[in-house]
Amino acid sequence: MYRSFDKVKTIASLGGGPIGAGWAAHFLAMGYKVKSFIYKNDERDNYDTFIETAWDSLKKIGLCETASLNNLLISTDISEVISDTDFIQESIPEILEVKRKFYEILGTIVPTDVIIASSTSGLTMTEIQKFCSTPERTIIAHPFNPPYLLPLVEIVGGKKTSNSAVEWAKKFYEQAGKKPLVMNKEIPGFVATRLQEALWREALHMVKSGEATPEQIDIALKNGPAPRMVVQGQCMAFHVACGEGGMATNLDQFGPALKLPWTRLKAPELTQALRNKMVTACASMAKGKSFAELAKQRDKSIVAILNAIKSSEI
Amino acid sequence: MYRSFDKVKTIASLGGGPIGAGWAAHFLAMGYKVKSFIYKNDERDNYDTFIETAWDSLKKIGLCETASLNNLLISTDISEVISDTDFIQESIPEILEVKRKFYEILGTIVPTDVIIASSTSGLTMTEIQKFCSTPERTIIAHPFNPPYLLPLVEIVGGKKTSNSAVEWAKKFYEQAGKKPLVMNKEIPGFVATRLQEALWREALHMVKSGEATPEQIDIALKNGPAPRMVVQGQCMAFHVACGEGGMATNLDQFGPALKLPWTRLKAPELTQALRNKMVTACASMAKGKSFAELAKQRDKSIVAILNAIKSSEI
Repeated sequence: MYRSFDKVKTIASLGGGPIGAGWAAHFLAMGYKVKSFIYKNDERDNYDTFIETAWDSLKKIGLCETASLNNLLISTDISEVISDTDFIQESIPEILEVKRKFYEILGTIVPTDVIIASSTSGLTMTEIQKFCSTPERTIIAHPFNPPYLLPLVEIVGGKKTSNSAVEWAKKFYEQAGKKPLVMNKEIPGFVATRLQEALWREALHMVKSGEATPEQIDIALKNGPAPRMVVQGQCMAFHVACGEGGMATNLDQFGPALKLPWTRLKAPELTQALRNKMVTACASMAKGKSFAELAKQRDKSIVAILNAIKSSEI
Repeated sequence: MYRSFDKVKTIASLGGGPIGAGWAAHFLAMGYKVKSFIYKNDERDNYDTFIETAWDSLKKIGLCETASLNNLLISTDISEVISDTDFIQESIPEILEVKRKFYEILGTIVPTDVIIASSTSGLTMTEIQKFCSTPERTIIAHPFNPPYLLPLVEIVGGKKTSNSAVEWAKKFYEQAGKKPLVMNKEIPGFVATRLQEALWREALHMVKSGEATPEQIDIALKNGPAPRMVVQGQCMAFHVACGEGGMATNLDQFGPALKLPWTRLKAPELTQALRNKMVTACASMAKGKSFAELAKQRDKSIVAILNAIKSSEI
C-alpha cells in the first residue's frame, strides 16, 4: 500500500530549524537524497553551517557508503521539494494552525503512498491531521535533539492514521538507522519527554525553593544517574542494582518510599498488578542473564562511557 | 581540627552489601588501606566476589600507583576495624534504629578528629545522629550505585554537624577521586535521587495506565534523553538546545508548556525570579563559550559515548 522500502531514495525534510536540518544531515549520512524546504533564502547560511557541524559528528559515527553532501537540495519551493520524494519528515514551527494548513496542502499534493511524518514534540497527530484529506498516512515521528545523533524516534498515529502507516514508519526508521518506539497511546509529551519533563519540573521546584542550584542539578545528574541511565534506562537500572532479587526486591524494599516526599510527584499506588507488570517486564528484558552478568555488562559500558567522556573533553 | 589530609591513609568501610564493598573497592583503587566491617563471616565470599568484579572495572579506569588488593582487611570485629583508621564510610542497613545505635557506639569509640560519613539514601543525619555524643563530625555522603564507578557523592550535615566537617568531607572526597556535591539544605532524597525519583514515579504511572511498558521506558531513556544528560545534565541540555537564546528562550518558549499535562508533576509557577535564577546560572555555566562551541562539545562527547556503548557491548 505504501511505497516499498527499496524505492525510498529521496526524502523531503521540511523546516529550516535545528530539527529539520538535523534530520536532513541524518538522512544524508544514511545515503539518501534529501530535499530540504526552508521558508526564506536567508535561512540558508544557518542551514549550511548546521549541516556542516552535524556532518563532522556523523563522519565519526560512520557514514553510509553512498553518503554525500552533494545529495542535498535546499529550496524555498515546496512543490519542487515534494515532487519525486518518497518520504516526508516535517519539522516546521510548532504552531497548530500552521501545521494544520500545511497538512491540508500536503494532503492533496503528495501521492497517497507517501508517508508524512511530523517531528512535533508538543502537538498530537489527531489535532494536526484535522483538515488533511488523506490523513491515514500521517504520523508523528518525534526525534530527540540533536536528531542526527540521538537514535530515538517516538512514533504514534492520530485517530485517522492507519495501523499500516505506523507499521511502515517503524520499519522505515529502523532501516534508516534510528531506534523507533511505537507508542501504545497518543499521550501528551510521548514517552521520553514525559519522563524528562517530570525530572525537569522537579528541578525547577528545587531551584525555586533554594534546595539546589542549576549547577548542582547538572553536576548531580552527570555524575550520578545519567551514566547508568544511558546503559540501562531506569527500570533495568533498578532491576540490576537490587542483585538477585531484581525489580521484585526493589519494589518490595522501596515501595514504602514511594509515599515519602522524595519529590513533588505523587507515585501511583503500588498494586499487585503494577508490581507484576514491572517484575515480569524486567525479567523478560534480562533475557535469562544472571545478575552477575548484567552487572558486569553495566560496568563495562559505564567504564567505556566514563573514559569516552574524559577523552572527548576539549 | 579534623585529621589532616596527608595523614588519611586508612579508611574503614562499614557494611557488607554492594555499597560497602563498592566503597572499599573505590578507596583501594585510590591507594588507601581499607578495613571492612561485615556482620558475619559468611558474608565474606560474596564480598570477595564483589571486590573482584569491581576491580576489573577499576583497572580499566586506571588504578592509583600504590593501589593493591593486599591493602584490604575484612573483619567482623568492629573494634579492629575502627582502630587506627582515619576516616569512616558507613553503609550498614537502612534501618533508623540500627543506624542510631551504631552512631551512639561510634560516637564514643572513634577519635573525635575522625569524620564519620553515612552512605544512607533515605535517612537524614539529623535523625541518625540523635544519640551520638560527638555528632559534629558525622555527615551524610551519599554515593550512586555502583559507587566504585559513578563519581557523585552528595554531602550534607545534620543539625548538629559542624560546617568544618562538611568542608573537610568535600575536600577529602575530591582528593579521593569523587565528585562531591555539598547540598544547601537537608532535604529528603537529596538532589540526584529526587530528580531520579520524579522520573521513576512518572514511569510507574505510565506502566500503570498502559501508556508505556517498562521496555519502552528504558528504550526511550537510553536512546533519547540519557546520552545527552551524561554530557550536559538537564539545565545545560536545554540551554544549548535553544541556540543563541539559551535558557531564556527555553523558558519563554516552553514556559506555557509547564502548565500542560506532559507529566503528573505540577511545575512551580514560572516567576521572574525563577526565570532569572535559571538564566543566570546557565550563562555562568557556559563560561563565555558560544552556542556553537557548546553544541560542538556536546556532539563530540555524545559521539564518543555512542561509540563507547557500541564497542562495549558483549
